Amino acid sequence: MTTLEDCRALDAQDPLRPLREQFTIPEGVLYLDGNSLGVLPKAAPARIAEVVAKEWGDGLIRSWNTASWFDLPQRLGDKVARLIGAAPGEVVCTDSTSVNLYKVLFAALSQQKDSGRKLVVSERSNFPTDLYIAESLCRERGFTLKLIDAGELQGPDSVLTDEVAVLMLTHVNYRTGAMHDMKAITAAAHAAGALTVWDLAHSAGAVPVALNESDADYAIGCGYKYLNGGPGAPAFVWVHTRHAGKFEQPLSGWWGHAAPFEFTPHYRPAPGVGRYLCGTQPVIALAGLECGLDTVLAAEVFNGTNGAMAALRTKSLALTDLFIALVEERCAGHGLALVTPREHARRGSQVCLSRDEGAYAIVQALIARGVIGDYRAGDSQMPDILRFGFTPLYLGFEDVWNAVEHLVQVLETGEWRRAEFNRKNAVT
Amino acid sequence: MTTLEDCRALDAQDPLRPLREQFTIPEGVLYLDGNSLGVLPKAAPARIAEVVAKEWGDGLIRSWNTASWFDLPQRLGDKVARLIGAAPGEVVCTDSTSVNLYKVLFAALSQQKDSGRKLVVSERSNFPTDLYIAESLCRERGFTLKLIDAGELQGPDSVLTDEVAVLMLTHVNYRTGAMHDMKAITAAAHAAGALTVWDLAHSAGAVPVALNESDADYAIGCGYKYLNGGPGAPAFVWVHTRHAGKFEQPLSGWWGHAAPFEFTPHYRPAPGVGRYLCGTQPVIALAGLECGLDTVLAAEVFNGTNGAMAALRTKSLALTDLFIALVEERCAGHGLALVTPREHARRGSQVCLSRDEGAYAIVQALIARGVIGDYRAGDSQMPDILRFGFTPLYLGFEDVWNAVEHLVQVLETGEWRRAEFNRKNAVT
Repeated sequence: MTTLEDCRALDAQDPLRPLREQFTIPEGVLYLDGNSLGVLPKAAPARIAEVVAKEWGDGLIRSWNTASWFDLPQRLGDKVARLIGAAPGEVVCTDSTSVNLYKVLFAALSQQKDSGRKLVVSERSNFPTDLYIAESLCRERGFTLKLIDAGELQGPDSVLTDEVAVLMLTHVNYRTGAMHDMKAITAAAHAAGALTVWDLAHSAGAVPVALNESDADYAIGCGYKYLNGGPGAPAFVWVHTRHAGKFEQPLSGWWGHAAPFEFTPHYRPAPGVGRYLCGTQPVIALAGLECGLDTVLAAEVFNGTNGAMAALRTKSLALTDLFIALVEERCAGHGLALVTPREHARRGSQVCLSRDEGAYAIVQALIARGVIGDYRAGDSQMPDILRFGFTPLYLGFEDVWNAVEHLVQVLETGEWRRAEFNRKNAVT
Repeated sequence: MTTLEDCRALDAQDPLRPLREQFTIPEGVLYLDGNSLGVLPKAAPARIAEVVAKEWGDGLIRSWNTASWFDLPQRLGDKVARLIGAAPGEVVCTDSTSVNLYKVLFAALSQQKDSGRKLVVSERSNFPTDLYIAESLCRERGFTLKLIDAGELQGPDSVLTDEVAVLMLTHVNYRTGAMHDMKAITAAAHAAGALTVWDLAHSAGAVPVALNESDADYAIGCGYKYLNGGPGAPAFVWVHTRHAGKFEQPLSGWWGHAAPFEFTPHYRPAPGVGRYLCGTQPVIALAGLECGLDTVLAAEVFNGTNGAMAALRTKSLALTDLFIALVEERCAGHGLALVTPREHARRGSQVCLSRDEGAYAIVQALIARGVIGDYRAGDSQMPDILRFGFTPLYLGFEDVWNAVEHLVQVLETGEWRRAEFNRKNAVT
């Protein structure tokens, strides 16, 4: 049996432990929801205040030059690139994840429009908003969205046929934490003549991603989850250099123009990923995102440039392994089931549990104790889920022990049943 | 001749004078560029710091409920509505102006797709990014973008024929400051069977706008110019209630879903303008925008709810009238020409001057003196322009005097010629 002392010993030996000093975490909170909204970097309040008072307040319009606002999307993009296996100049930070997905899926469909291929394949369990964007683009552009289960991507009956134009997948599933083999799946898609679009919302800052090594085509991701960029921080978008200079950008705004300050009457797209910029970006929000990116890049101190995620991954797997082991040791007999894959190669940086009843109330009871995870409702294929994100930047092994200790108490005292009773019988 | 004392007397009598106390304006700066980026509201640094430290840092994911993040786009939209002649529930603040233009033009073209009408009409002198967005959407959806001069909208040879699907105009021209008669032009467009899309980037917070009274169809606008929302602040979008519940939104993300937290597999658009939301919005940037909106709404104290712009308009016209008069009295013989219409009904809240040579250098010389306006390069139809924005919220009559005094000195001393010489002969 693992003990609290074992966990403390692991923390004492953990070389990444000092990284948590980069964050302000509220007193009494054990935060297992960094997969939904990352915590506040200590540097962010001062940096944001500086942008507000000096760049906006004092600099005013002059800050386009003096504070290099125009370079922000690329400068931050270069930082993201170091976390996702991309090269400088291949990524920009801009707009929201959904808007960026629209851009890249539009571009991929444009490339395939004369191929006779009419299918966009995605997973039934993909993040709903990705499916909404695909649904609307497919209808508009004469494609059909085909939803499948992950198992159907492989083997002799694979859905990856010569009818498939684009394979659009989320690398790490938002609900189960299951991770795809990006390289193998991309190779299979390419062998079938399809292009790949990867959503890295639960990957960037959470697991190593190797976009160029995987030979992926397009990718987008989120700035406010594992990248700690702040609520609604701008997202990012990447495109493989073989498509750069050719892909179509439907949202053809001034910031993506080849000569943005010339105000020419016709649109001439910037070379490369720069054309994925559209309108004026939220400068203050970009400043928050940069502080978040720097917290993750701080792990490069252990592993060199581009090496942050490899260093973080080792700890992430140790944390999730420990959580799984402790739940199995200490919560047996309480009806919990493990949803997230045990196999390291298939696991993101979260662990999800399911239960026939009470998942919502258990999460609420944990939140009342300051242990913040979240709940995702089930559907015809998946039970209700308790979701716990493990961010190696600011979580330690004793934190994992404490989380399980609270879970044990919630289950054994039955306090979640009181929460459930109150919810069901609320006087409204 | 108008004197400095006359200007001081006007300030002393100005009931709106206290409104400037809402802003932090840098020492030594006379800011005539609020049409490009509004100044910093005094309330913004503290409010933004609160959102960062409390809502993000302490509240974390709980702030979706405790800080009502989900309501922000609508809550701010209701504030914008009071400035543009719209009703509560008709406006949301979200994304960038360009992205919002894409949404509304897409929606309008969808409504016209079976009408047989194939033209989108806009002005040759419209803001280039609006034309870029239209260019790309027209190509994609089988329409033709026809660029015209404003005069071609009226009379027996009007371009508004039964071939026109959509008339897309910017209400106040970014370069000349000329304002369209929204009501008359909308009526003419409707009589021809066309829908109207209005860009209010240089109108919202600058001039009274009456969207519902004008019977307009779609409108979008900018948050960081006259609304003082901060660099890259989210933009806004409005749709007439007759289209609400019917219009198509191509960027079909989770925040515009009818039941955004149910994570259903298919997109079901929210009723009304709410469907124009897409992905997660920058919460910190929205907080800055709200501070900016409040500075404009403060003018309601003189005129009641929805009355802010009427109060501000009187002063705005007095400021631009004074600037024109002083330039004519004091800069005669220096080759300046007036570009902005003299007629009040056709003038926005800026005054533009042109000159055969030196416009860029004169603007630079003024900026070196702390008088910040901007320069817009000419083209085949329009000379180079010196652009001066007059924001009645924080500019007074003595400011106008001082601006012209600096302009006189720059012209009379010829210091702009030195700037021009240095620019042309720069050692690079």
